[in-house]
Amino acid sequence: MKIDDTDRKILDCLAEDGRMSYVDIGKRLNLSRVSIRERVQQLVKNGVIEKFGVVINSELVGKTVSAFFEVECEPSALLSVARNLSKNQSVASCYQMTGPSMLHVHVLVEDFHQLENFTNKELYSMKGITSVNSHILLRRFKSRSGLKL
Amino acid sequence: MKIDDTDRKILDCLAEDGRMSYVDIGKRLNLSRVSIRERVQQLVKNGVIEKFGVVINSELVGKTVSAFFEVECEPSALLSVARNLSKNQSVASCYQMTGPSMLHVHVLVEDFHQLENFTNKELYSMKGITSVNSHILLRRFKSRSGLKL
Amino acid sequence: MKIDDTDRKILDCLAEDGRMSYVDIGKRLNLSRVSIRERVQQLVKNGVIEKFGVVINSELVGKTVSAFFEVECEPSALLSVARNLSKNQSVASCYQMTGPSMLHVHVLVEDFHQLENFTNKELYSMKGITSVNSHILLRRFKSRSGLKL
Amino acid sequence: MKIDDTDRKILDCLAEDGRMSYVDIGKRLNLSRVSIRERVQQLVKNGVIEKFGVVINSELVGKTVSAFFEVECEPSALLSVARNLSKNQSVASCYQMTGPSMLHVHVLVEDFHQLENFTNKELYSMKGITSVNSHILLRRFKSRSGLKL
Amino acid sequence: MKIDDTDRKILDCLAEDGRMSYVDIGKRLNLSRVSIRERVQQLVKNGVIEKFGVVINSELVGKTVSAFFEVECEPSALLSVARNLSKNQSVASCYQMTGPSMLHVHVLVEDFHQLENFTNKELYSMKGITSVNSHILLRRFKSRSGLKL
Amino acid sequence: MKIDDTDRKILDCLAEDGRMSYVDIGKRLNLSRVSIRERVQQLVKNGVIEKFGVVINSELVGKTVSAFFEVECEPSALLSVARNLSKNQSVASCYQMTGPSMLHVHVLVEDFHQLENFTNKELYSMKGITSVNSHILLRRFKSRSGLKL
Amino acid sequence: MKIDDTDRKILDCLAEDGRMSYVDIGKRLNLSRVSIRERVQQLVKNGVIEKFGVVINSELVGKTVSAFFEVECEPSALLSVARNLSKNQSVASCYQMTGPSMLHVHVLVEDFHQLENFTNKELYSMKGITSVNSHILLRRFKSRSGLKL
Amino acid sequence: MKIDDTDRKILDCLAEDGRMSYVDIGKRLNLSRVSIRERVQQLVKNGVIEKFGVVINSELVGKTVSAFFEVECEPSALLSVARNLSKNQSVASCYQMTGPSMLHVHVLVEDFHQLENFTNKELYSMKGITSVNSHILLRRFKSRSGLKL
Repeated sequence: MKIDDTDRKILDCLAEDGRMSYVDIGKRLNLSRVSIRERVQQLVKNGVIEKFGVVINSELVGKTVSAFFEVECEPSALLSVARNLSKNQSVASCYQMTGPSMLHVHVLVEDFHQLENFTNKELYSMKGITSVNSHILLRRFKSRSGLKL
Repeated sequence: MKIDDTDRKILDCLAEDGRMSYVDIGKRLNLSRVSIRERVQQLVKNGVIEKFGVVINSELVGKTVSAFFEVECEPSALLSVARNLSKNQSVASCYQMTGPSMLHVHVLVEDFHQLENFTNKELYSMKGITSVNSHILLRRFKSRSGLKL
Repeated sequence: MKIDDTDRKILDCLAEDGRMSYVDIGKRLNLSRVSIRERVQQLVKNGVIEKFGVVINSELVGKTVSAFFEVECEPSALLSVARNLSKNQSVASCYQMTGPSMLHVHVLVEDFHQLENFTNKELYSMKGITSVNSHILLRRFKSRSGLKL
Repeated sequence: MKIDDTDRKILDCLAEDGRMSYVDIGKRLNLSRVSIRERVQQLVKNGVIEKFGVVINSELVGKTVSAFFEVECEPSALLSVARNLSKNQSVASCYQMTGPSMLHVHVLVEDFHQLENFTNKELYSMKGITSVNSHILLRRFKSRSGLKL
Repeated sequence: MKIDDTDRKILDCLAEDGRMSYVDIGKRLNLSRVSIRERVQQLVKNGVIEKFGVVINSELVGKTVSAFFEVECEPSALLSVARNLSKNQSVASCYQMTGPSMLHVHVLVEDFHQLENFTNKELYSMKGITSVNSHILLRRFKSRSGLKL
Repeated sequence: MKIDDTDRKILDCLAEDGRMSYVDIGKRLNLSRVSIRERVQQLVKNGVIEKFGVVINSELVGKTVSAFFEVECEPSALLSVARNLSKNQSVASCYQMTGPSMLHVHVLVEDFHQLENFTNKELYSMKGITSVNSHILLRRFKSRSGLKL
Repeated sequence: MKIDDTDRKILDCLAEDGRMSYVDIGKRLNLSRVSIRERVQQLVKNGVIEKFGVVINSELVGKTVSAFFEVECEPSALLSVARNLSKNQSVASCYQMTGPSMLHVHVLVEDFHQLENFTNKELYSMKGITSVNSHILLRRFKSRSGLKL
Repeated sequence: MKIDDTDRKILDCLAEDGRMSYVDIGKRLNLSRVSIRERVQQLVKNGVIEKFGVVINSELVGKTVSAFFEVECEPSALLSVARNLSKNQSVASCYQMTGPSMLHVHVLVEDFHQLENFTNKELYSMKGITSVNSHILLRRFKSRSGLKL
């Protein structure tokens, strides 16, 4: 499956504004509203566009503490731990990466009290977890949305 | 500035589908299209909604290598390094966090050759950077869009 | 609950000298002895003042070795370990913090022999502790009392 | 210089309540108010009692973020860095300890914004500092006042 | 057992081209084909030459991901883990070295999917393994064949 | 460029014995000596076969100490350091990998005296190198030749 | 128990040459052979002199590999591991120190084969040991005998 | 140069008691005083016996703090730092080893004040030193004299 230059330009428009109308995208690209709609539907169908979203300011909705957790667990428990973490409402993302740490987990909570609760009640009580290292976000320099890490 | 329950429900709809029409949101919430539009405009105006976006499958558009970099630099160069990194097209996000590492940087590139190029030509040649540690994504268990980390 | 500027000035007086009389505080603030006493009683009642204390020179009372311990334990044992440590006479403080270490513990003992005893008999024999890292104080540059860390 | 058992009992009373009156201490120890006052004055004079203080709940006065910093600097700058840090209002204590880190610094600030400011504007701009590692307090299990660490 | 200068020159020829004919080696060394053959047979017999091999470009045969794994295991399981790893087709080498890591393992696989599979299905499911740290090759500056590391 | 199944079988024969005659390979594969020779020449020409080599027992030729070095250098010096190391006779391989270390270097020397010389005279005197970490091989469990790491 | 200046001078003589005769020491200090003998006997009796020894060149008696091991074990096994290690012929010293490692062990063996044997057969088979980190001596700059570390 | 079994037995006697008379050694080995003396003189001459010494209890002569320092320096300064450290009276030994640390230094001082002085005035003021990590001895399980590490 290949995407062409026109597809890329449509993706650029939608990355700029996910609610841009097909008419407006068409005007920019000198194409009809219908052909834009068809291409967008095709991009959704073959999975290039995974979803349309909205970028919410986490602090303004009360999630003021952003944290990274490096989670170590017993090797045989890795998959079940990863799945349990993924179901947790406070967990924004959960990755397995090369390097010394088993799971990299991004967490959004309202305050330190919730962070301590998450650490002590969610993580330390989860079967198979052996250690946890956490870091708290001090400053965002860039935070691009649109492409999954 | 406060958001109420109706605002939260609208944000949930838009997180589910950033292109959901105001009519459809209104139907779910038993509100008129106009009041939804006004609330959305208000949420955009006060910064709760930072933007509407689109989640693109990075592998299907050819970005097959996702990497974390922990970047150390001379303390006096931190801000200029952070700003230079933020301008780089391959950099998806750039954070300062508590813990031993100065900058956490997420990078999306097409292959190892680009990753080596990014490391050797972009990072190691940037004035003020003293060391770099990189990790490559092996598996995504959860990757939530909509809320900034 | 809020404290005002007069409260802050009273706290400054007490931080300077915890035994300063209400009369003397009143003179400094141009307030009556009674109103100072009432405000202090209120600050104690609502928990702003946790207690009045005394700063003792630990070396002059024979506590010549100050040490930090980073204590790791099995996740499920964290709370019981923290509580047991907190009951120990040699433990001055016990904190849970972000980062790689589970518990940060400050210990005051009389000499190396007591330190070795504390390590081998108190810590290593405590159920659930898996490893211990210790550092010994060489020099105090600043040691503020009055505010809890 | 030696302290005797009666001195120790007086110190225990004052550690319990730094404002306990000499009359009340005397009653507990079966000694006159005068002899208590003389002994306390002697303990202050020879430095056993460094000061009388007050333990303030840092959160209730708005210091909600407690952090440890491990500060590394150029060896020749160690003393000047330690002295500069000690002058800083946000720094509660500053220690040199055995182990890999040059300076252990305890910091109390109001929020993350101040913490980021302290890190980027106070620390990273201080001549001679080469790296900084920070940890944030999640939970206090024990925090004894009265004895300096 | 000793090797002489002529042996060393023969080894140099074979390191240059493992298929160099005995006649050609003889010409270079001013020796007969027969004496070269006898010396080579002797070098093979006493183990100096372990085998004749071929250096294959791993990327051109589809092995595009080269990785180092540092594998930790329960001490009593070290030998069985090392032997199991050595039987694995993806494992190019497996060493025990001084330093903090128990086993250094070099792995060649076709892509990230295989690497994740190797990590999660081969390593983490192997009895006795407690943790795994992986690094991926970005660039070869030198890769000498002929001498075993 | 693609290789087929017959090519792979020829590579397997040569990996087993790099001096296997084309006649013997042909017998195993039911192909003529000439077609084997042509295919081998083609595999050499397009780079799949990089060279024919010989695996020499490094201890029997007097290289009794095998070591890994993790070499850190100033970022701007990385390429020149890597090239200088690659020219060194004692260096068997030199890689750049993901993770915390800049260069992974494999070294073969005759004894500790040479290793100390290599460390102090070759490495520490090389412009741009900032630190060096070394590990010595204790035991080989598997050491596959034929495929470059 | 106190030692005086004359004692110190005698210790200096014996540190210089442990077999120096009492007559020769007496000449240096302007004291009789008898008074030197009495003081030496007293120093031995009260434990200041633990023993007279001989410094042997370990390489010339075939101990060519000197190594440090950092040994971690289950906390409850620390004392039994330390005692078992102390009984081992290859172990020259075994210390418990502050810092991250439980036991620092100095080992003298004849060659790498013995070192690997010591690691795999003595250490990894000892009940309670969880991990081992080893370093090999490259060069002695100073090695003072006479005072125990 | 070789030593035989009789030499080894003599070394064992001297390791047991460095002042054992040649007569007593001769009795144990069924050899004459003269032949023992000649062999000992030969062992001294060819360097097997480096010196006769005395093992002094460091605490009883006032050296109560034993410490290990891991000293890092600029690579070009390594040799001069090692030589300067070796001249220092408080330094008992100074080694270069494999692993991450450049120099391992053993130090004996009288108390913490001297240790802090040694760290801040001797080490941190020495040109070329970049960082220092220290550990303090808690307990000796074994401390063999006679063989150099």
